[in-house]
Amino acid sequence: MSSGKVLVAQGGGPTAVINQSLAGVVLEARRHHGIQRVYGARHGVRGIVNEDFWDLTQETSHNLEMVANTPSSALGSTRDKPDLKYCHEIFKVLRAHQIEHFFNIGGNDSSDTVRIISEEAAKAGYPLRCIHIPKTIDNDLVSNDHTPGFPSAARFVAQAFAGANLDNASLPGVYVGVVMGRHAGFLTAAAALGKKFPDDGPHLIYLPERVFSIERFLSDVKAVYERHGRCVIAVSEGIHDESGTPMLVKLAKALEHDAHGNVQLSGSGALADLLCEEIKTQLKIKRVRGDTFGYLQRSFIGCVSDVDQREAREVGEKAVQFAMWGSRDGSVAIKRTGYYSVDYELLPLAEVAGKTRVMEDEFIAASGTDVTDAFRLYLRPLLGSGLPDAFRLRAHSVPKVLGG
Amino acid sequence: MSSGKVLVAQGGGPTAVINQSLAGVVLEARRHHGIQRVYGARHGVRGIVNEDFWDLTQETSHNLEMVANTPSSALGSTRDKPDLKYCHEIFKVLRAHQIEHFFNIGGNDSSDTVRIISEEAAKAGYPLRCIHIPKTIDNDLVSNDHTPGFPSAARFVAQAFAGANLDNASLPGVYVGVVMGRHAGFLTAAAALGKKFPDDGPHLIYLPERVFSIERFLSDVKAVYERHGRCVIAVSEGIHDESGTPMLVKLAKALEHDAHGNVQLSGSGALADLLCEEIKTQLKIKRVRGDTFGYLQRSFIGCVSDVDQREAREVGEKAVQFAMWGSRDGSVAIKRTGYYSVDYELLPLAEVAGKTRVMEDEFIAASGTDVTDAFRLYLRPLLGSGLPDAFRLRAHSVPKVLGG
Repeated sequence: MSSGKVLVAQGGGPTAVINQSLAGVVLEARRHHGIQRVYGARHGVRGIVNEDFWDLTQETSHNLEMVANTPSSALGSTRDKPDLKYCHEIFKVLRAHQIEHFFNIGGNDSSDTVRIISEEAAKAGYPLRCIHIPKTIDNDLVSNDHTPGFPSAARFVAQAFAGANLDNASLPGVYVGVVMGRHAGFLTAAAALGKKFPDDGPHLIYLPERVFSIERFLSDVKAVYERHGRCVIAVSEGIHDESGTPMLVKLAKALEHDAHGNVQLSGSGALADLLCEEIKTQLKIKRVRGDTFGYLQRSFIGCVSDVDQREAREVGEKAVQFAMWGSRDGSVAIKRTGYYSVDYELLPLAEVAGKTRVMEDEFIAASGTDVTDAFRLYLRPLLGSGLPDAFRLRAHSVPKVLGG
Repeated sequence: MSSGKVLVAQGGGPTAVINQSLAGVVLEARRHHGIQRVYGARHGVRGIVNEDFWDLTQETSHNLEMVANTPSSALGSTRDKPDLKYCHEIFKVLRAHQIEHFFNIGGNDSSDTVRIISEEAAKAGYPLRCIHIPKTIDNDLVSNDHTPGFPSAARFVAQAFAGANLDNASLPGVYVGVVMGRHAGFLTAAAALGKKFPDDGPHLIYLPERVFSIERFLSDVKAVYERHGRCVIAVSEGIHDESGTPMLVKLAKALEHDAHGNVQLSGSGALADLLCEEIKTQLKIKRVRGDTFGYLQRSFIGCVSDVDQREAREVGEKAVQFAMWGSRDGSVAIKRTGYYSVDYELLPLAEVAGKTRVMEDEFIAASGTDVTDAFRLYLRPLLGSGLPDAFRLRAHSVPKVLGG
C-alpha cells in the first residue's frame, strides 16, 4: 500500500532560482491524488539524517509562489558530501518515514547521493523513486545543455562587467574582476556578454580550462593597456598553473602572504589583490583595482533571468511527472531543441553523477583569453529578456583654441 | 554680445545616474534659444585644461536619452582636485572658448572647484555663470536631503544584503560585507533596508561615524552567532580606531601583512579578509566569508532607483534653469518637502563647497551597530519602486519517527 509521501531536499551552493525547482516539485506533487504529504528536508541531506522535516503540504500555494521568486535555498542547504555510510543513514530515515519519492535538487555531488540511495533501495527491495534535479551556477553537469541557476549568475556577471567596463572607461586603469568557478569557466566566460562596443572590456578572460602563466598574463595586460589606455580583466577563481596548483596558493606563497595560502577560493578577496599587486609592481601601472564578486553573484536579489526562472520551475515539475509516470530513477536534464527552445529528459543517474563538465574547446578562442561566437550564441538566450544595454556619447571634437 | 556657449563636466566617482544629470543639462540647455553650443569636457576638469571638448549640440536627443540610462560618467571623469593654480588654467580655457555657462557635476571637491572658478571670474570681471550639480554615492554633501547617485548605490547595497542574508541562512556561518564610504556611513547603513524578518541580517552594522574596536566587534559577533547560529555583518571601508587610524591599516600591521598596509581603501578585499581572519582565529568559527562590494555598488548596470533617475535628471535641468533665469552662481540642492516629495534650491557655493556631511546621530542606534527607524523612514522612499522582496517557507515541523 502506498504511503503517498514525497521528500524534497536542496543541496550545495544556493542559486537565484533553486526555489523555483522546489516550488515546481511541491506544487506538482500536491496536484497528484496519490500524494498525501510533501516533506521538505531542512539543510539538505543533513536534515534527512536528523529527521528535520517541514510539511510542505501545509504551506500555501501563494507563499510557495513568492518563495519561488526568492533567491537561495528556502529549505536550507548543506556542504555535506555523503559517503556510503552516510547514505545508509539517509536510507534508514527515508524508510522509517515511508518516503516513496525522493527529489534532490543540487549539483554533481547531490546527483551522486541520489545514485547511491537509489542503488541501496534497489538492493533492499524498498520501493523508492529517486530523482535528481539539476542546479549549479557552475554549469558543470555533463549531458545538460546548461543547468538552472547558471543563467541568472551569468546575467549578474555580464551586467557586473558591463558596469565595470563603463566605470573603467570613465576613470581609466586596470580592473580585475574575480568570478566563481573552480573547474568550469562558464561563469567567468559570461563576462564576455557584458561587451557591446569593439573596445569595451572585458579585454581579457582567464579560464580554469587553460593553464595560467603570470608572465603571459602580465604581457597580455601590458599589450591591452598600451592599446586602449585601460584594461578590464575577468578571472576565474580556479586559475592554476600547469601542475594544477591554484594561482591563489602560488602567488600567496611567492609573496609570503601565508594567511592567504589556503585552498579556500571563494569568500576572500586575496586572488584579486595578489593579481593587482603583480600588475602594479611589474607593469608600474598606478590605477589598478580588483573586485571579487563573491556571494553577490549567486544570491543577489533582483538580477535574475526569466528564462532561468521558467526552466528551474519546469525541471522541478518534470521531476515529479517523470517519477509519477515513468518507471525508473534518474536525473532531469535540459536539452536544447532550437533557437531558443528546450525540452527535458530523464537521464540514468550514473550518466551524470559525480562527473564534471568543463567548457568545450569550441567555446574558447584560440588566444585562450576570449570566448568564441559559438559561446555568445550559446549563452545569450539563457540570459533572458530585459537585459540592460550600455550606450555612449558619439565623439564630435571641438577644435582647440589655445592649442597644446 | 553673448557667445551662447555652455560647458558641462563630470567629476569624481561614477554613479548609476550621473548621466541623467548630464542629459538634463544638455537637453534643457539646447531648448534655450540663446544657447548655440553645448560642450562636454572629456574627463572632467582635466579635459578643460587640455581643451578636450565634445560638441553635444551634435548629439541626437535619442542617444542622449539612452546614455542617460547608462551608468558611469559618459564624458569620462577624473580624480584631479584643482588647486588655485589649476583653477586659473581652467578659467583661461573657459575664457578662450568664450564659455558663459559652466556646469560641473560632482561631489564636494567638484563644488569647491566651481566656487574658486566663480570667484576668479568675478575678480576678472568675466561674465561666467557657474553651477555645481550634486552627485555622490557617499551622500556626504551638506545642506542636501540626499545626493543623486546615493539612492541607486543604496539600493544595490540593500539588495546585496537581502541576498547575502538568504545565502547565509541557507549555509549558516559568518558573513562580512564591506561597503564603500570613507567618512560617511550612509551607504553602509543602507544594508539595514535589506532586512525583512526579525532574525534577518545584517545583524551588525559598523559605520565610520562610530569608533571601531576589534574587541567590541568580536564580542558583538559572538553574541549574534550564539543567538542565531549565524551572523551577517555590514562594515564600512572607513572604520577606524579612536585616533582615526583606518582599521585596514591597523589590522594589516598587527598581522604583518605589509602589502595591505596602504591607505587605498577601495579596490581591495583586504579589510574583509582581515576581519574574517580575526573572527576565525579568535572566535573559532569555521565558516566565515567576506565580500567587498567594490565597484559593483556604484556602476552595476540594471540596479537603479527610478526616484534617483528622476531626481538626477531634474537637478541637471534645474541647474540650467537657475543659470538662465537666476542672477547668481550656486550649487543645486535637493530639499525634501513631504513624504515623499522634493524641490530644488540653489545654494551659495560656499555653503556646500569642500564640506563633508556624515550620518546624523538620530540615524544611528544607541548600540552603534544598527540604524534607527528615522533612518529607515528617510531612506526607503529613495530606493524607488519595484524593490525585490524576500519570502520564506513557514515552519510546519514533521514529528520524528526514529527520534534522536
